[in-house]
Amino acid sequence: MKKLINRVEAVVDEATEGLGLAHPDLVRVHLEPRYVARADAPVQGKVALISGGGSGHEPLHGGYVGRGMLDAACPGEVFTSPVPDQMVEAAKAVHGGAGVLFIVKNYTGDVMNFELAAELLQAEGIEVRSVLVADDVAVEDSLYTAGRRGVGGTVFVEKIAGAAAEAGASLDEVERIARRVSENVRSMGMALTSCTVPAKGSPTFELGEDEMEIGIGIHGEPGRERMKLRPADEITAMLAGPVIDDLGLQAGEQVIAMVNGMGGTPLMELYIVYRQLAQILKQRGIAIVRNLVGNYITSLEMQGCSISLLRADDELLRLWDAPVHTPALRWGV
Amino acid sequence: MKKLINRVEAVVDEATEGLGLAHPDLVRVHLEPRYVARADAPVQGKVALISGGGSGHEPLHGGYVGRGMLDAACPGEVFTSPVPDQMVEAAKAVHGGAGVLFIVKNYTGDVMNFELAAELLQAEGIEVRSVLVADDVAVEDSLYTAGRRGVGGTVFVEKIAGAAAEAGASLDEVERIARRVSENVRSMGMALTSCTVPAKGSPTFELGEDEMEIGIGIHGEPGRERMKLRPADEITAMLAGPVIDDLGLQAGEQVIAMVNGMGGTPLMELYIVYRQLAQILKQRGIAIVRNLVGNYITSLEMQGCSISLLRADDELLRLWDAPVHTPALRWGV
Repeated sequence: MKKLINRVEAVVDEATEGLGLAHPDLVRVHLEPRYVARADAPVQGKVALISGGGSGHEPLHGGYVGRGMLDAACPGEVFTSPVPDQMVEAAKAVHGGAGVLFIVKNYTGDVMNFELAAELLQAEGIEVRSVLVADDVAVEDSLYTAGRRGVGGTVFVEKIAGAAAEAGASLDEVERIARRVSENVRSMGMALTSCTVPAKGSPTFELGEDEMEIGIGIHGEPGRERMKLRPADEITAMLAGPVIDDLGLQAGEQVIAMVNGMGGTPLMELYIVYRQLAQILKQRGIAIVRNLVGNYITSLEMQGCSISLLRADDELLRLWDAPVHTPALRWGV
Repeated sequence: MKKLINRVEAVVDEATEGLGLAHPDLVRVHLEPRYVARADAPVQGKVALISGGGSGHEPLHGGYVGRGMLDAACPGEVFTSPVPDQMVEAAKAVHGGAGVLFIVKNYTGDVMNFELAAELLQAEGIEVRSVLVADDVAVEDSLYTAGRRGVGGTVFVEKIAGAAAEAGASLDEVERIARRVSENVRSMGMALTSCTVPAKGSPTFELGEDEMEIGIGIHGEPGRERMKLRPADEITAMLAGPVIDDLGLQAGEQVIAMVNGMGGTPLMELYIVYRQLAQILKQRGIAIVRNLVGNYITSLEMQGCSISLLRADDELLRLWDAPVHTPALRWGV
């Protein structure tokens, strides 16, 4: 295993400390229990947005803490759900009296632990709602999931609900908007190579020298099909097709598109995928009105990519365009 | 070779097209000859900044075209210098009557081709100056270089000189500032794995399962030493030490620091490196006043990192903080 790490047990703590040292104007880091909070939290009167999940998907979620996005993120061990104590302490640290919204990717451990945290917080008089993200069209159930997995759509939910909360929307309203995003976003990914979880020390799965996995999960969970490597344009079509169909996108509609790298993919290759995605959508009469191309939700050093599409309307676009200032996403500031 | 590409010969054209499709508000792409220009170029009365070099280092340079940074970038084939025709046509397309500054990484092919382009442009009455970036402290001469190689420092030169040009500085002044940055920035990198140039199809070099290369170049050129893998903190010290010493940084000074990924390195690992870099500088009494952590100048899918430090003062900091809006670097807008 070749990684820029010190001790395997310290990987997440040290990376989280590094995030805090690099961005003291944006975030502050707490280690026991581990969470990343907005530097200016609690913001009085603002709904607090909290997410979290296994580490190894950086910049998700810690890189999205800051103005106009998350109030706190709870990093679990690599590919392992955070524990309820993290969400409880994070919520106590950042809630500003207007309630808390949990944004939860649909994995069994995450769902269970966020639920438990919500119960503990409600018992202490803090109002908590949860929105589930389950946008991966590749498979219906998976190794760690009942129902669809939560993947790239999470970035959209966090950005757009975060903008609503920043603008002073109520908990009801922020929850409504988060659900609207979650219902209107779909994703699908693929891998050229596996990744290696530090604590395990060997690749999560094996792929032949000429093979790829279509529909891969962000923890290397099996996808739809293992097949021979194809040209980028064909791969792009294999990912975009199911996403467009599942969303039921029609000619004349608008989308925000994300071409996301899995962590080990050169940016050059992501732009080759974006080029073909733009052509596919154009042919179908669907307009890409905003986009992200880069590493936004990764799987350690995995090579591969995912495509996410969000059906956009004026409300969602306005919130997308609102200022955001986090370690990994910044505009308007 | 596993890559998200179509035909090997089309890689750079297609990636450049993708960049243009993703950011039509910022850049426009020209393919014959190939260059990326600011969407609003030429900006009348503004010094035009142009850079370029082999592709495979994305987001450098095309990702840095836009307001407050480059007016044009000329992408060569992967790890191959662009040809003079690219720089000449780019310069004609973007110069706004106030002269052109070439920012050139110190590789023999780049230096020669930018020089030839400058001569051709001067013959047509366009004033051209060139600033060389040669910030890599690892080796004095290299496979493709007489003198030191130009690496991460280029990002600083492009940002800061770009801010000066945007503010309306004269060609003399922009050149002076670019030189000041170039003289005050140093870098050093390392690799855990090789990369594979598409046209070659096999890894540029071989590293054993427990080996790393310290002082690697951004094309996989040999560095200072091949050695057994060490913990991230030791690697960080091996990179930061020579950079600090070569700059002659003293206690009480300020720096802008970049921890850069080579393309295949998880962000989590870069933050582990940043954590230790912050500790090393703190122990020496040197303050990091701004930083970048991420993929800014890459080597395809190589795993590894580099550290760059720029000695900062009020003038350079003010220009660093000035608004920038490019595909890969954005703030204040």
